[in-house]
Amino acid sequence: MNVLGVAGSLRRDSHNRNLLRAAGALFPPGVQFAQYDRLKQVAPFDEDDELDTPLAVTHWRAAIDQADAVLFATPEYNASIPGQLKNAIDWASRPVKQTVLRNKPVAVIGASTGMFGAVWAQAELRKALATAGARVIDRELPVPTVAEAFDDRGALIDHDLALELESILLELLDSAGRRQAA
Amino acid sequence: MNVLGVAGSLRRDSHNRNLLRAAGALFPPGVQFAQYDRLKQVAPFDEDDELDTPLAVTHWRAAIDQADAVLFATPEYNASIPGQLKNAIDWASRPVKQTVLRNKPVAVIGASTGMFGAVWAQAELRKALATAGARVIDRELPVPTVAEAFDDRGALIDHDLALELESILLELLDSAGRRQAA
Repeated sequence: MNVLGVAGSLRRDSHNRNLLRAAGALFPPGVQFAQYDRLKQVAPFDEDDELDTPLAVTHWRAAIDQADAVLFATPEYNASIPGQLKNAIDWASRPVKQTVLRNKPVAVIGASTGMFGAVWAQAELRKALATAGARVIDRELPVPTVAEAFDDRGALIDHDLALELESILLELLDSAGRRQAA
Repeated sequence: MNVLGVAGSLRRDSHNRNLLRAAGALFPPGVQFAQYDRLKQVAPFDEDDELDTPLAVTHWRAAIDQADAVLFATPEYNASIPGQLKNAIDWASRPVKQTVLRNKPVAVIGASTGMFGAVWAQAELRKALATAGARVIDRELPVPTVAEAFDDRGALIDHDLALELESILLELLDSAGRRQAA
């Protein structure tokens, strides 16, 4: 089983990248987990470019296609999904009849430095993914004041949070397992 | 008074670009209206790039700053804002204390080829703009089955729609006028 992690923030020391790293350490043995590291290269979605798809878009779609499940960790920008993450979803959702998101098991978690843990961005991202045809796990992991949730080495020190995250990961794997069996 | 139009779709024959063109013809005399034509050039928002802002971002921010009001026309992608448009809003909203969107009068309209007229995208865009500090006109213009609303030369043939659009434009100008007076 292999799971793709996608952080919605592009900066190097992103909290959501750290959150995905923590998630990676919580998967059971036998699960391969890797973070997608070329989100920034995905060009702006333009219908006029669909017949000559940019290479970075082909790479992005293939990464989703080859994963058994996708785990998104998103910050919140202006009360919604970061634009570049949404842009990548827009490309992945096309063409509608062949989208790599169709029936793809996905889960959404998110961290913010403020009080609310990116809940609006998470909700909107779940909505967009469901609209694109993905099998969205109906769970949310808001990580507020994220700086306090990790130690200096990036390990998750909030035990309740780790348990909740682990339970979401198991649900995601369960969904992926059922899809494989079907 | 000058108003900047921003279409959320990047393709050349965009319906929302047509909608903005129709709006341009409905402004009273004395209003300068121009569409922003470099949205595609705006790089993905990355906090690590904030100290060395990309040129296209500086251009985009200046265009908003120099406009007395901004009129957005957005399609709907995956039940939400097109990613590249949201990405441009994310850049414009930074840095928080100096954002060019602060108190900027803005209105949102939108067209879709389907039945719902991009209402979810419009609602989410209003929310994002308000969060960024803009003065968002509390109106919506859903243009469903947009191909039927225009004639072959791109003129608006739906009279009720034209009246509704004109009323939104007047409200936007009123907001811009009150801001100038203040």
